[in-house]
Order: sequence, then structure tokens, then C-alpha cells
Amino acid sequence: MRIAIDAMGGDHAPACNVQGVLAAAEVWSDIELLLVGDEARLEPMLTSRPTNVRIVHAASTIEADDEPVKAVRRKKDASMVVSGRMVREGEADCMISAGNTGALMTTGLLVVGRMPGVERPALSPMIPTMDGRGVLALDLGANMDAKPEHLVQYALMGSMYREKVHGIPKPRVGLLNVGTEAMKGNDLTKQVYPMLEPMPIHFVGNVEARDVLEGNCDVLVCDGFVGNVFLKSLEGTAGSLFSVLKQEFTRSWYTKLAAAVLMPGLKRLKKMMDYKEHGGAPLLGLNGLVLKAHGSSDARAIENAVRQARTALQHDLIHTIATEIGGNTSGK
Amino acid sequence: MRIAIDAMGGDHAPACNVQGVLAAAEVWSDIELLLVGDEARLEPMLTSRPTNVRIVHAASTIEADDEPVKAVRRKKDASMVVSGRMVREGEADCMISAGNTGALMTTGLLVVGRMPGVERPALSPMIPTMDGRGVLALDLGANMDAKPEHLVQYALMGSMYREKVHGIPKPRVGLLNVGTEAMKGNDLTKQVYPMLEPMPIHFVGNVEARDVLEGNCDVLVCDGFVGNVFLKSLEGTAGSLFSVLKQEFTRSWYTKLAAAVLMPGLKRLKKMMDYKEHGGAPLLGLNGLVLKAHGSSDARAIENAVRQARTALQHDLIHTIATEIGGNTSGK
Repeated sequence: MRIAIDAMGGDHAPACNVQGVLAAAEVWSDIELLLVGDEARLEPMLTSRPTNVRIVHAASTIEADDEPVKAVRRKKDASMVVSGRMVREGEADCMISAGNTGALMTTGLLVVGRMPGVERPALSPMIPTMDGRGVLALDLGANMDAKPEHLVQYALMGSMYREKVHGIPKPRVGLLNVGTEAMKGNDLTKQVYPMLEPMPIHFVGNVEARDVLEGNCDVLVCDGFVGNVFLKSLEGTAGSLFSVLKQEFTRSWYTKLAAAVLMPGLKRLKKMMDYKEHGGAPLLGLNGLVLKAHGSSDARAIENAVRQARTALQHDLIHTIATEIGGNTSGK
Repeated sequence: MRIAIDAMGGDHAPACNVQGVLAAAEVWSDIELLLVGDEARLEPMLTSRPTNVRIVHAASTIEADDEPVKAVRRKKDASMVVSGRMVREGEADCMISAGNTGALMTTGLLVVGRMPGVERPALSPMIPTMDGRGVLALDLGANMDAKPEHLVQYALMGSMYREKVHGIPKPRVGLLNVGTEAMKGNDLTKQVYPMLEPMPIHFVGNVEARDVLEGNCDVLVCDGFVGNVFLKSLEGTAGSLFSVLKQEFTRSWYTKLAAAVLMPGLKRLKKMMDYKEHGGAPLLGLNGLVLKAHGSSDARAIENAVRQARTALQHDLIHTIATEIGGNTSGK
């Protein structure tokens, strides 16, 4: 198993990426790790020399504020693009990047390429839930407008990912909607509902946004626009509440004292809500495994992403999805 | 000014509705309040007899679990339907109901009727923001699928409501989107953006879900499906966080003690997040003023809804909207 890591992508690249890779190399001797990036910068960072880590030189880097499509088209020697090319050409089985999300989605589409039969790949992060299981939500922004067939493929791909990578036997698949009754929703969800029922998945019907955090499904299906609004309102609400709590708790010396007592609980809650804790987001529906690690990934996050990739590869995720998609959808 | 109140709708009806109306009648002698409902039940509840309160008999009631369209069509003598008919026939200038939301939207459409030129009325509640101003969001669920023209009308109507009823001189109108750049979004928002720019409103561009709570606009425009998902994820996140906080704060006697010290702050935060505090939600785009009070309205909430209705009527809201809509949109 060969995993290419975009060494230059992310807020703490390349240092944390290198550290994470070295740590992962030590734990799993059955994988080969390819650090893709500027050799001159990476070489001195190798504090150890595990035999299963290798540097692959890439002369440039896609920056966080680069325009995605332009950057991928022009910077053919960027670490992200080189990693994608290695996946396409079979030199790597997977790529991981903590860089520019838009550029990674573009790299997935233009460099790695779509899986035959899949029209729209989906960005599929884990959203934290109160029961700690988390929910894989897709699509959260790879495609703004989706057709019913796309959502059906999201459901299939998400279900397989949860089963193969997270070991959940019959993942509960829910359709994000405005009510739980079958006929609720907009034109899209009304069309998708009856299409999901005969699929070989454990479809639990419509789920409302307010119940998702309580953990009522393992896979949440929605179009990229709605999914993105959903995720951001979740993040925004949590962020705003924490900032007001902080204000309230620092009003006086005795509220500060009381807050100190409650700090461990607050920290647990904050950690629970932090979706960085939940690993990388796969881009599902590509002709190879592509994982988006969070932009602010530290060494541990990179190591976690490698663990995730390894599990997916061990279970032959991409091949399984390709077979299932081929058998269950028309590919339109 | 004559305001019809559905005396039988809401979790605490008719008692709280009657109390709220009696309180309002005392404060504002320039309005006439019509309590619409079962006379035999309402009559004994009139603890005082202000000259500006009158009971209008309605024999039946639409229940919370009634199927909206069926209920409105069949129960022609329901308090909600009778109130709507009074608005249509000019016997009342406004109606307020805390009953079944779906039935009220149906009453608005089928009984009160659409404003000429408006294809889709919008449910327009206030969403609390951290700065205490709140934001009027529309549509939050009256119509699941919207065309660009509908969103333009939502923007116009919402802006006028904020100006006339809340006294905000140039309300900032934002388009709910996945990014702030003009070309972001799905087909719908990409079409709407350039249509909003020439409108006689203070259009501040796209706003992201995560920034809405920080108060970056006074009017938030979106389609009913996205709006509903947005509102429910906001409610769900806040609800889940509060319930986890409660767990954490009751772990031991010393966390309980600390929590007691922080309780005033937590209560302020909870109140800030409570959208019941922000008054009734107008159904904009109807041929008369229809206000949805929260289902769990107490007497004070009903009194507040009356205050809101009175302000809207004083500023001739419906006529102003009709003129503006007639002048600025084709009505398609």
C-alpha cells in the first residue's frame, strides 16, 4: 500500500505533515509513505529515516488563496497535483492533502478522474454527534446542484465507506429534509426518497437538521449547497455560543472561579464539537482514494488521516464502490 | 384598526390568548380586538370587559395534528379560518394565530389570498442574533422550491417589514449562500444575486450561515427548504449544546455549585437564543396582515404579537408592500 502525502498543503505544512508521516511510518510498517513536495525543504526535516518513507520532489505549491481551477491547470508541478497524478498512474493507492479544498476537489476531478458511472464525486466529512459516533455527511460542497441520481450514489458510497472504513455493519442512511414524513421536502428530496427505498442500504428515511447531532443516522445525504449551509450553521451556532459563554464566564472574579471548576466539562464539549477530531474527509466517487485533511491539521491529524487511508485500502474501498455503483445505478 | 385573534390556536389556548388580548386592550385603546372562537368557552374567561374587545363565535378548532389543507377546506367554521375570512372581507385588518403553522399558511393562501403580483408568500420569523438585533429570515418553509423571482420578492418584502415595523432605516439584506463572493452558490443564488443588485434595497451580498448569528444582516433571503434546514440546525445545535452543558454541570456537587454561580449568564444566553422571544412571524405576500405567533405562546407573547400587528398597521405595511411589489417586479 502506497500513500502519497501532499507535504506542502495545510496551515502547518510542511513541518507537521512530515512529523505525522514519520510517526505513521513507525506504527505501520506495511505501508509505504511518499512525501510529495520541495525536496530541499523536506530533506532536512527527516529527523528519522524509516525505510518506508520516501520524498517525491514537486517544485511548486498550491496556496490557500489560489483560484482552484486555474491553480490546478497551471501549476502542474504542485505537490497536490503531483500526488493526484501518482494516484491516477497507479504509483500511489491514495493521496492525502490538507491544502486548498477547492483545488483538491479540482485535482480529484481533473487529475485523478471520476470513477466510471459516477457523475459527481462528493466531499464527505464526518460531523460530530452528541453520542460520539459522528455522521458521514455528503455532499458537503463538491457540487452545488445535484440531481436525484447523484444523491442515490452519495447514499451508496457513504454507506460503503462507513461499513468498510468504520466497521459499522448496517449503516443507517438518512436523507436531510424538513420533516420526517416521506412526502416532505423540495422537488429533489421528494424524487430521491422513493429511489432510495429499493437500494441495498439501510435507508432510515428523512431526518431533520435538528436531530442529526443527536446521532439518528450514520450517513446523511444532501446536495452540496444544503449540506454546506447545514455544516456552517452548525459551526456558527457552536462558535457563537462558546464565545458568549466565555463572555458570561469572565464577568467577575467569582464567575471566573466557577468557570474554572467547569472547564474540564466545557473542554470535553468543545472537543466533541470539533470536527477536526473526526479525521479526514474522503472525496468519494473518484478513481482512487483522495482524503482531505483539515487545513489546520497538526502531526496527529496527519497520522490519523494515514490510519484512515490504510483502513480504506485494506478493505479495498474504491474497488468495492466501483462494483456496487456499476451494479446499482445507471451511471447517469 | 381591527385585529382578529384566533383564540383557540396554540398550546395554551384559549386561556393565555384571552389574557394576552385583555392585557393588550388595556394598553392600546386605539385598536379593536376580536377574539375568534367558541363563545361558550371564551365568555367566562373575560375577567374584565374592555369596550375594545369583542368575541366572534367560531364553532370548531383546527388541531395541531390536523392535516393543513384538508382541515382548512373542511372546517370552514374553525376559529383560524373564520379569522382569515374576516381579513379577506375587511372585517379585520389583521389576524394573529398561534395554531397549526401549516394550516395557517394554507388559510393565508386559500382564505386571505395572495397579494396581486406575489406568486409565493413567505413565512418570515425573526432569528435571534448575538448582538440582540435579530434577523428576519424568509422564506423559512412556506414554499420548498423557489424561483429567482420569488427570492427577489422576499428581499423586497422583508426589507419593507424591517423598515416599517422595526424602524430600521436601511435594512441590510443578505442572500444566504455558501461563500461571500458574488459567483458562489447554486444555480438559484447565482441567478438571484445580479437581480438583487439593482433593487431599491440595501443589498449587502452573500452571507454565510456561520455569520448570520453574529448579526451581519437584518434580512436573510433564502428558499424555504434551505431556510428550514438552516433554522433547524441552529435550533438543534443550541439544544444539543445546552443539554450536554446541563449534563456536565450536574456531574458532582462542586460542578453544581459552580453552575449555580453561572446560572444568570446561562439564562441570559438561553433567552438570547430563544426565538419565541422575538415575536410573531409574519406571512408576507398575502392580501392582508397574517401573523404566526409561536405555538407555545403565553399571554405576554400574544400581547407582543398584538403590539407587532398594531405597528405594522400604523405604518400601512400591506399597502406599502403592494405598491412596491407592483412597481418593482413583473409579478411572475
